[in-house]
Amino acid sequence: MAASLGSTGPDLKLALRLFDELRSRTGGEHGITRDSYGPGEQTAHEIVAAAAKADGLEVSRDAAANLYITLPGRNRAAPILLMGSHLDSVPHGGNFDGAAGVIAGVATLAALRRANQIPVFDLTVMAIRAEEAAWFDASYVGSRAAFGLLTDREIDGVRRSDTGRTLAEHMIECGADPAALRRGERFLATDRLRGFIELHIEQGPILERAGTSVGIVTGIRGCRRFRNARCVGGYAHSGAEPRNHRSDAVAATVALIARLEAEWIELETAGHDLTFTVGELYTDAALHGPSKVAGETRFVLDFRSLSDAIMLQMCERSRALAVELGRDYRVNFELGEPLFSAPALLDADMRRRFAAAASMRGTRSIEMASGAGHDASVFANLGVPTGMIFVRNAHGSHNSSEAMEMRDFAAAARVLFDVVAEEAIP
Amino acid sequence: MAASLGSTGPDLKLALRLFDELRSRTGGEHGITRDSYGPGEQTAHEIVAAAAKADGLEVSRDAAANLYITLPGRNRAAPILLMGSHLDSVPHGGNFDGAAGVIAGVATLAALRRANQIPVFDLTVMAIRAEEAAWFDASYVGSRAAFGLLTDREIDGVRRSDTGRTLAEHMIECGADPAALRRGERFLATDRLRGFIELHIEQGPILERAGTSVGIVTGIRGCRRFRNARCVGGYAHSGAEPRNHRSDAVAATVALIARLEAEWIELETAGHDLTFTVGELYTDAALHGPSKVAGETRFVLDFRSLSDAIMLQMCERSRALAVELGRDYRVNFELGEPLFSAPALLDADMRRRFAAAASMRGTRSIEMASGAGHDASVFANLGVPTGMIFVRNAHGSHNSSEAMEMRDFAAAARVLFDVVAEEAIP
Repeated sequence: MAASLGSTGPDLKLALRLFDELRSRTGGEHGITRDSYGPGEQTAHEIVAAAAKADGLEVSRDAAANLYITLPGRNRAAPILLMGSHLDSVPHGGNFDGAAGVIAGVATLAALRRANQIPVFDLTVMAIRAEEAAWFDASYVGSRAAFGLLTDREIDGVRRSDTGRTLAEHMIECGADPAALRRGERFLATDRLRGFIELHIEQGPILERAGTSVGIVTGIRGCRRFRNARCVGGYAHSGAEPRNHRSDAVAATVALIARLEAEWIELETAGHDLTFTVGELYTDAALHGPSKVAGETRFVLDFRSLSDAIMLQMCERSRALAVELGRDYRVNFELGEPLFSAPALLDADMRRRFAAAASMRGTRSIEMASGAGHDASVFANLGVPTGMIFVRNAHGSHNSSEAMEMRDFAAAARVLFDVVAEEAIP
Repeated sequence: MAASLGSTGPDLKLALRLFDELRSRTGGEHGITRDSYGPGEQTAHEIVAAAAKADGLEVSRDAAANLYITLPGRNRAAPILLMGSHLDSVPHGGNFDGAAGVIAGVATLAALRRANQIPVFDLTVMAIRAEEAAWFDASYVGSRAAFGLLTDREIDGVRRSDTGRTLAEHMIECGADPAALRRGERFLATDRLRGFIELHIEQGPILERAGTSVGIVTGIRGCRRFRNARCVGGYAHSGAEPRNHRSDAVAATVALIARLEAEWIELETAGHDLTFTVGELYTDAALHGPSKVAGETRFVLDFRSLSDAIMLQMCERSRALAVELGRDYRVNFELGEPLFSAPALLDADMRRRFAAAASMRGTRSIEMASGAGHDASVFANLGVPTGMIFVRNAHGSHNSSEAMEMRDFAAAARVLFDVVAEEAIP
């Protein structure tokens, strides 16, 4: 790192201004809403692009209308260092989820430019489109589109949950070029990237409970999920049907979940990374009753881990238990095929550099897995050296009471700044 | 029993004709519907009353519009022997639930009258109103009203689930006199009853599985039910919230139900009478999600037994487990106060006479508890010697595929006929 940068850091005043402008222009009575490929996300892109231009940074867009903000390097042909995150949000979400990573990047580039620093290679902040699956039932739309990985079925077949219109229609309204995406045009190539760094608020309580501002992410958990699992038994009179003749869908489902929870505890105790969650479970409101044995349940089995082998083991266990308990309880389990997103391991060298940078600033950091998915997993799984920095955040994410303290953001943004400067400034 | 009756029995042709007329006039595309204090039940009462009159039997009604059909005895001042059941049905129910008991009684009285038999005391068939709680959220409306036990709150406060109009309004339309009921007027008094006998289809699969036409009911299970139980935890990200910090309402509820099921099996193995059922269980559709730890469940805990001590024990166990598991899972269970209906033990002498009568006819019978509630429990709990005869029935009750064979009905109706004749005919 250049000696002249020793006492500098990201432009936190700019960051604060951008957070405030995002909140005032995309917020409402209940939290903020930046709808993917809609007015909310579009406004966020305009705010960030205008600030970057005002600070003399280069601004460009790709065929998916992802936004790129660049501080040009001496060698413009060299692979670039990319940082960033998404600018969309869930409906009535918080102001920091996604935006923090974009703003930390812009605050870094703006500070370097104002200090007249010229990096060896281009430093680029990417404001990614449509990360939140709440709007389009497709994962990581913007980052995959940048690599030419969006399928025609997604571009023309997936409809926004509220408007019912296709991804392509929404893209066109936001200045994107779905025809180019259908041709497989790509803006990013892995051999043009030195690495990707995503700063993001933590979506769980780990940093808060550890009393630490900064988390260094070891990997992003993948997910295997039986989204539409079902147990089919038979309705019967609660008082008149003996236990040994019941086909009780609730009893059978309870037994399945209890057994899977026991497996989870066992694997966790043995040191394996895993979460198991049944977030939805319900009998049929049209047919159930207080004095009826339940003839049907529907539920979700959600497994997440850094290890796909562990997730596969839980899926196999689910299927085996469904057969065993189906027999014991005289019911049929229909688990269906699990949805899959791959786990992503993050770059060990980046992790070391984040830890060293935090330590130099006197900031305590801890290593942790990310339970939620992030665009970073797209980059990591394509072989780009990828790192993630988490910022402490109260009350979880995807809700309006999400609460990141600016001093925690500052600590994390300084880690980003220092690592980028050390890598890029001669 | 008079020797001349040795080869006789209930008028099964009349019974068949009444079942057919009920089906054709109260049936539709999906099963039959005889709405309590509505056109369906009213039609059934008219059919039965007309047939009784045609056979020369006395017909009267009480202030609740219950129908009484009497073969007068020599001593009209002596306590009477009452038999009967209800004529209403659930929506889209079966033709036999309730009606079988009324028709068996009418077929018995008609046969005795045609044979010019004069009983020692009055023999009366009661066609009871509004037994099915599907219409009015009040139990045993007709039989309790006959004893003057209906409260003003029920008469004027309970509304029919489909029309929204009060019980009193519906009663008036069917010729009842709610003002007399409000004054506490009673038609039946326990000291005027020698006994009450209810023949009814079995609502479970026990007779079918035992290969037997006739069941002799030992008692009617009572019920203690946490109707609106709730578990309150906290929503969180399924991948980001560690197990030891979750307040997972589904995991806690599953643990509670699994523990109560284990208690049930233990009590059952020790020979205690009990059923435990969770007929409704659901996460909140407005807030749950496939990648969220569930912050709330709602469910029903339904306990039924011939022994109130066993039901009380399960309620106590539920409360203790709610505290223990609430602590373990960092959630709050709100079980509420359980609804209660008392178990009823049926008359031992009647049970012996039913068994002897079945045996004399070469019909195998078994003793069994009734899991469903019946008007008979009102009589039994008022101290009237009460008996119940169950008829084999496939596919349970409260649905249109309920299937009683006429030869099973005939076997059970003969038991009723023989016991009544032996008691009443000199």
